[in-house]
Amino acid sequence: MHRENNADHGRFKRQGFPEAVYAPGKPAKTVISICRKLAVSEGPVIVTRAERALFGSVKRAFPKAVYFERAKIVLVKAMKKKAISSGYVCVITAGTTDVPVAEEAAVTAEALGAKVRRIYDVGVAGVHRLLEHKDAISAAKCVVVCAGMEGALGSVVGGMAACPVIGVPTSVGYGVSFGGVSALLSMLNSCAANVSVVNIDDGFGAGVIASLILKGSKR
Amino acid sequence: MHRENNADHGRFKRQGFPEAVYAPGKPAKTVISICRKLAVSEGPVIVTRAERALFGSVKRAFPKAVYFERAKIVLVKAMKKKAISSGYVCVITAGTTDVPVAEEAAVTAEALGAKVRRIYDVGVAGVHRLLEHKDAISAAKCVVVCAGMEGALGSVVGGMAACPVIGVPTSVGYGVSFGGVSALLSMLNSCAANVSVVNIDDGFGAGVIASLILKGSKR
Amino acid sequence: MHRENNADHGRFKRQGFPEAVYAPGKPAKTVISICRKLAVSEGPVIVTRAERALFGSVKRAFPKAVYFERAKIVLVKAMKKKAISSGYVCVITAGTTDVPVAEEAAVTAEALGAKVRRIYDVGVAGVHRLLEHKDAISAAKCVVVCAGMEGALGSVVGGMAACPVIGVPTSVGYGVSFGGVSALLSMLNSCAANVSVVNIDDGFGAGVIASLILKGSKR
Amino acid sequence: MHRENNADHGRFKRQGFPEAVYAPGKPAKTVISICRKLAVSEGPVIVTRAERALFGSVKRAFPKAVYFERAKIVLVKAMKKKAISSGYVCVITAGTTDVPVAEEAAVTAEALGAKVRRIYDVGVAGVHRLLEHKDAISAAKCVVVCAGMEGALGSVVGGMAACPVIGVPTSVGYGVSFGGVSALLSMLNSCAANVSVVNIDDGFGAGVIASLILKGSKR
Amino acid sequence: MHRENNADHGRFKRQGFPEAVYAPGKPAKTVISICRKLAVSEGPVIVTRAERALFGSVKRAFPKAVYFERAKIVLVKAMKKKAISSGYVCVITAGTTDVPVAEEAAVTAEALGAKVRRIYDVGVAGVHRLLEHKDAISAAKCVVVCAGMEGALGSVVGGMAACPVIGVPTSVGYGVSFGGVSALLSMLNSCAANVSVVNIDDGFGAGVIASLILKGSKR
Amino acid sequence: MHRENNADHGRFKRQGFPEAVYAPGKPAKTVISICRKLAVSEGPVIVTRAERALFGSVKRAFPKAVYFERAKIVLVKAMKKKAISSGYVCVITAGTTDVPVAEEAAVTAEALGAKVRRIYDVGVAGVHRLLEHKDAISAAKCVVVCAGMEGALGSVVGGMAACPVIGVPTSVGYGVSFGGVSALLSMLNSCAANVSVVNIDDGFGAGVIASLILKGSKR
Amino acid sequence: MHRENNADHGRFKRQGFPEAVYAPGKPAKTVISICRKLAVSEGPVIVTRAERALFGSVKRAFPKAVYFERAKIVLVKAMKKKAISSGYVCVITAGTTDVPVAEEAAVTAEALGAKVRRIYDVGVAGVHRLLEHKDAISAAKCVVVCAGMEGALGSVVGGMAACPVIGVPTSVGYGVSFGGVSALLSMLNSCAANVSVVNIDDGFGAGVIASLILKGSKR
Amino acid sequence: MHRENNADHGRFKRQGFPEAVYAPGKPAKTVISICRKLAVSEGPVIVTRAERALFGSVKRAFPKAVYFERAKIVLVKAMKKKAISSGYVCVITAGTTDVPVAEEAAVTAEALGAKVRRIYDVGVAGVHRLLEHKDAISAAKCVVVCAGMEGALGSVVGGMAACPVIGVPTSVGYGVSFGGVSALLSMLNSCAANVSVVNIDDGFGAGVIASLILKGSKR
Repeated sequence: MHRENNADHGRFKRQGFPEAVYAPGKPAKTVISICRKLAVSEGPVIVTRAERALFGSVKRAFPKAVYFERAKIVLVKAMKKKAISSGYVCVITAGTTDVPVAEEAAVTAEALGAKVRRIYDVGVAGVHRLLEHKDAISAAKCVVVCAGMEGALGSVVGGMAACPVIGVPTSVGYGVSFGGVSALLSMLNSCAANVSVVNIDDGFGAGVIASLILKGSKR
Repeated sequence: MHRENNADHGRFKRQGFPEAVYAPGKPAKTVISICRKLAVSEGPVIVTRAERALFGSVKRAFPKAVYFERAKIVLVKAMKKKAISSGYVCVITAGTTDVPVAEEAAVTAEALGAKVRRIYDVGVAGVHRLLEHKDAISAAKCVVVCAGMEGALGSVVGGMAACPVIGVPTSVGYGVSFGGVSALLSMLNSCAANVSVVNIDDGFGAGVIASLILKGSKR
Repeated sequence: MHRENNADHGRFKRQGFPEAVYAPGKPAKTVISICRKLAVSEGPVIVTRAERALFGSVKRAFPKAVYFERAKIVLVKAMKKKAISSGYVCVITAGTTDVPVAEEAAVTAEALGAKVRRIYDVGVAGVHRLLEHKDAISAAKCVVVCAGMEGALGSVVGGMAACPVIGVPTSVGYGVSFGGVSALLSMLNSCAANVSVVNIDDGFGAGVIASLILKGSKR
Repeated sequence: MHRENNADHGRFKRQGFPEAVYAPGKPAKTVISICRKLAVSEGPVIVTRAERALFGSVKRAFPKAVYFERAKIVLVKAMKKKAISSGYVCVITAGTTDVPVAEEAAVTAEALGAKVRRIYDVGVAGVHRLLEHKDAISAAKCVVVCAGMEGALGSVVGGMAACPVIGVPTSVGYGVSFGGVSALLSMLNSCAANVSVVNIDDGFGAGVIASLILKGSKR
Repeated sequence: MHRENNADHGRFKRQGFPEAVYAPGKPAKTVISICRKLAVSEGPVIVTRAERALFGSVKRAFPKAVYFERAKIVLVKAMKKKAISSGYVCVITAGTTDVPVAEEAAVTAEALGAKVRRIYDVGVAGVHRLLEHKDAISAAKCVVVCAGMEGALGSVVGGMAACPVIGVPTSVGYGVSFGGVSALLSMLNSCAANVSVVNIDDGFGAGVIASLILKGSKR
Repeated sequence: MHRENNADHGRFKRQGFPEAVYAPGKPAKTVISICRKLAVSEGPVIVTRAERALFGSVKRAFPKAVYFERAKIVLVKAMKKKAISSGYVCVITAGTTDVPVAEEAAVTAEALGAKVRRIYDVGVAGVHRLLEHKDAISAAKCVVVCAGMEGALGSVVGGMAACPVIGVPTSVGYGVSFGGVSALLSMLNSCAANVSVVNIDDGFGAGVIASLILKGSKR
Repeated sequence: MHRENNADHGRFKRQGFPEAVYAPGKPAKTVISICRKLAVSEGPVIVTRAERALFGSVKRAFPKAVYFERAKIVLVKAMKKKAISSGYVCVITAGTTDVPVAEEAAVTAEALGAKVRRIYDVGVAGVHRLLEHKDAISAAKCVVVCAGMEGALGSVVGGMAACPVIGVPTSVGYGVSFGGVSALLSMLNSCAANVSVVNIDDGFGAGVIASLILKGSKR
Repeated sequence: MHRENNADHGRFKRQGFPEAVYAPGKPAKTVISICRKLAVSEGPVIVTRAERALFGSVKRAFPKAVYFERAKIVLVKAMKKKAISSGYVCVITAGTTDVPVAEEAAVTAEALGAKVRRIYDVGVAGVHRLLEHKDAISAAKCVVVCAGMEGALGSVVGGMAACPVIGVPTSVGYGVSFGGVSALLSMLNSCAANVSVVNIDDGFGAGVIASLILKGSKR
């Protein structure tokens, strides 16, 4: 018989971050079975886009599992925590509806040992709200910007930071926001050269990259 | 025989702005012949996207014609100038390469009797450059924002102005700027509610609308 | 702890129009809490895309709140009404299914002190219906055109008005209407130079801009 | 050896219209050789999108060939002319730059025996220009509408005609006209039910269909 | 108060076909009220995309109303039937799932007095099935082709008919059929010059055009 | 120093077909240097999309090089020819302008030892031309179909063949052919299940796959 | 009356594979009636995308019918099994969520007499998992690669196989995976020349082509 | 008079990298004048996409300017070099035609003080070429991957590296590569979570980000 579940449990050792279990469309049984395989590694075991009901099932199999409601993350098994850097990641959102994506990034980064500073609801239509946080942004080791609609926040923050900025376009908006595509295009076209971009709503990816930057950084 | 040139010479009287002659693809002879028809109106006669060579030909037919090099506009016949308002339009660009589009807007608005204040090269990657002009923007009766790439300037200015803001996406950029489409989408998705948008590089349209707003405004 | 709700309550003072509360996806509790913050301002407090059920909840918190069913707007707190201009905005639709978007625009403009004249169901496939309203259109200070499908109404009205025309493409249609994108493209390509465009179904934005034009206008 | 030129010389007999020779990219030699094959049929032989230089070459091989400059058509061999109907086709354009496409349609229809009435430069931004031709449009057996930019003319004419209307979107415009795609979408979404559409700039197709409608019509 | 329902009851007299009532999103009350207005005309009154439940309501108001289940059409009021031509329209489908769209076209054409011949499920992957109907196609006055997926049937039928062919792309398919867009593009690109195209799933439009062609045709 | 040219000379041995040298944008010097590396393998060395001028240069370095003008292929070094199968590939085109792509496929397949049968200019608008070749198609081991515009030929041939059919969409067409995208979508949506597709104009890929199918086939 | 169900029961004889019954949107009655027609052929009768409930109904009509749960295939009638080749097809997936599509391909190929070897969950983010299967891939007669998201597996496998590779993009992913379009584009652009592609999620097509390749192959 | 050139000379101090001068479309005079403004900063002055002719002009104004031919970069003024880290950036390409973009990234990073290791022409169609460099990739502090066509290299490298990977899609390819869009989508959809992406051909941006990562890293 063929083996179908090949979860890459060596990823944490090889790369410093684990394979995540993307929950949508997977039955609880499958999620748990993949978690078991991944748990042999010393890295954290993370389930993303998990509804509360799924957490219930996972919790029975892994009693130490913790649920982050807004991030929709189940942290099945934590890393032996030690901060990977004395620096921090700034996670910023344009509006309140971008927060779930931001939390996915923040909780992921924290699970991988990063310190996170959250600055939420500071969209550019009232740019004074953002400028209040100038010092926190300048001193960050990495910034994650989550914004939907026109995604302009990426460029404005990009022009303030002295570190890599990771843009996470979100699917917030309507009409020609095209489910996040407009924000994505904005961030890719950013006139600030230090901005790179991940897939729409991909808070997990942003959190992983932020943690890698902090891990490699001067203490 | 059929009549092919039906230039709408009544437009200025009916609507307060003239039909423009869009030069690309029209032989000088045709341009001049259309200008002749339009000149019966009391409004200005404007040729847009005109190369210098075309201006030479037009000048021979209309000795008072004036050429605006960066705007690529030939003002074939001016209005009897009287300022239509004591207020002014702000025309703003993100970069220096957006200037030709901005000049098309500014020269058009001026030809229609508006006062114009230009603020160029104040892109959001260095947002302090824009904030220096806060008072000029707050006091404007209308703002025209010309930006390519990610077009984020539209939203930031939109959040500063107390009047209608007209976004003109420009075809400046490369890769996924898609010839101005990304900037267009940004401006349409703007989180600032006072921003409306015209076609890519359509400085003429923006200039017309700005002049109509000023014309209707309190002196 | 981080603060997540940064509602921009200074917007009315700074810009002459308030931040709207976009209801979809926000729990009643959140909507009410944002409304509380915004209510410190002297401007109106407006909730858009609100279902009747939400109105029920809001009404308990703000007994003076009023619901505009077709506009799906809750006017939580009205401005101390004084007409901002002796002129009026024309709000026009191509069909009856475009009316909800038109009402969002009209109610918004009225909440901001503008007089509104509604002309509905005058699509171009029977252009005589539109021509009957020629005088009302000619005398308007601003026109808002709401149309889906091919959005041709924008250009025809654009050629009749002597003021700025704001096109609101609606998501009415099927097949290659692409949820409003075809109407949007039509309006952006309009051969009438006085037409600018807002996002698909964005009645609120059109209402804000119309009120700003009237506010700035000669009495 | 394989035979590469399989020109469908039976098409006129089978279908009432001939295969056209689309000139771009074909050497004069090839064009002439295909024309030779097609000339065995009793239908006309038509070369489309032909530059004047190509006409020179074709003329040497077919001394009776005639060139229609604006239509860019070489009529290599005419039909034995007899009018196919006492009715006529109206060919209408929005602007002067749409005329070459309109001429391709008109000359094609004429080559196939139809009477044609041309109404050019009657775009909807000045709808009075179109309304002057109301009677001519009402009495037509078929109408061909050529328009670029937003293509709104299709719907307005569609609402006036009592016969099938064939929309030919043209590649006239800039920015989001997308080389004719916006006009195409407008015409496909037309709120007038009697409008069908052919490919961008496809005057030949429109001319063929118009001639078929006239041919089948009551005398 | 403003009047919102402007149903164009003069359309049948002016153009030979009525305004249809597109049912989706309209309450029964509205549908009935529009039907009342349209019923003053001598043309048929047609409701499209109507579910059976809506028919129930309409039937109570118009006891003579008839429901065509597969076409989803309610014929509220019939024309005083007299065949408009001795010729017929061929309505052809590629598969069985295209039949509802074909029936919308066929029933519409019949309601407008045309004779219809149906040829269903003759897709090109087994082209012999289509060729069996060669004579019926050759003798038609107009052909309507309904096809989804790759829409190739349009071109093959286009090469067989001696009359105008109206392509109706359907939303049948999955993956890159993009809800009918691929079939639409195929039909617009058809190598057969006698094919024009209407919007995706627009059986009503095709039926109207077919009836106009037959009406104008020699008896 | 870093080594930049890593031509995969083991590909023929490993996979049965060589890496091709895609000429556009590469100076003659680079092409020749890559050919030298590839020539160590026992497979053929093929340069695609080569202009005649480039062939001149290559010929000086490899005196046995042969140029296939219509295919734009330089066969720098031939395989020790032995037919890989007693069967043959059919290469079919819709029109004459698709022939260069077809020749790229045919010459590639021949260079890899396949027998090829060419059937050109048999587009579906005159389907009788195709049906004449029914027996040749039925007996083929593999069919390559090259078509632009609506690409309908793929489905019709797909319904006739008893073997895999490889669709090669070509960039032939104008307007909504979108440089081959419409043909590509048609072929991917083919209602014939035995059709798979390669990139637009990718004759080389089709030739390689055809040769692999023949090579694996029963003699 | 017209006949609507024209199931192509001669396809197996003519082409070596049957018409499949695509279940979505067809009532059980229709599915069974089409199966009856197809059952006269000696080929297998296959229903694709079938839910378990449909299987219940089919089973009552065809007691020998078998259901393949993950493939969502009902094999209504099997072929008289005899292996068509001593070789095998490799069916490979990038992730576990691609398995249903892979099973549609595998079960189809098996129903048509092919031997299948499954290699699942070997995505390129851990390329060592794929390299373990190098020998199985090298020895295959045909490879089917099912992958969503970025579809990179197609190219990597394409570079390892010595036979045709059929890419099946799957709709697995989110954000800019665009329901499989990104994977499709990747596979069409593959730098490995032996990769051709079928529609998104079209496991059936891939299974048919794979079986045709094996059937034609040396034993 | 208005001031048009607002070059952001404070960017290096504020953010650690300079504003670049993007040469296309700017006259030499403008380029030089902007360089003069930027030269007051202590950072390097970099002109990108510069043709050799432009270098000639710049060299006269800045005799120490250096030209990097393949990168098309003029380094007008170097930083006082000191390596910013003992680690290095890996810059990797799929093919030889991706090298100019890679060089833009590499030269930019070097100008900002980073050590760079180049690994070119290691595309995934021969994955063994990439695997030879496994150790170099594992030990990098940052990896930049430049690839066109299907961009699959991003995911494969992403699965090997223990640091952030920056994908630079290149415009290399034809047909459905859509000028780099396919590669862009692949990289954004990457199944490796450590990959973020910049605009098509944006080597400069990738170089800046890589240098920021190294600068922040442990020595």
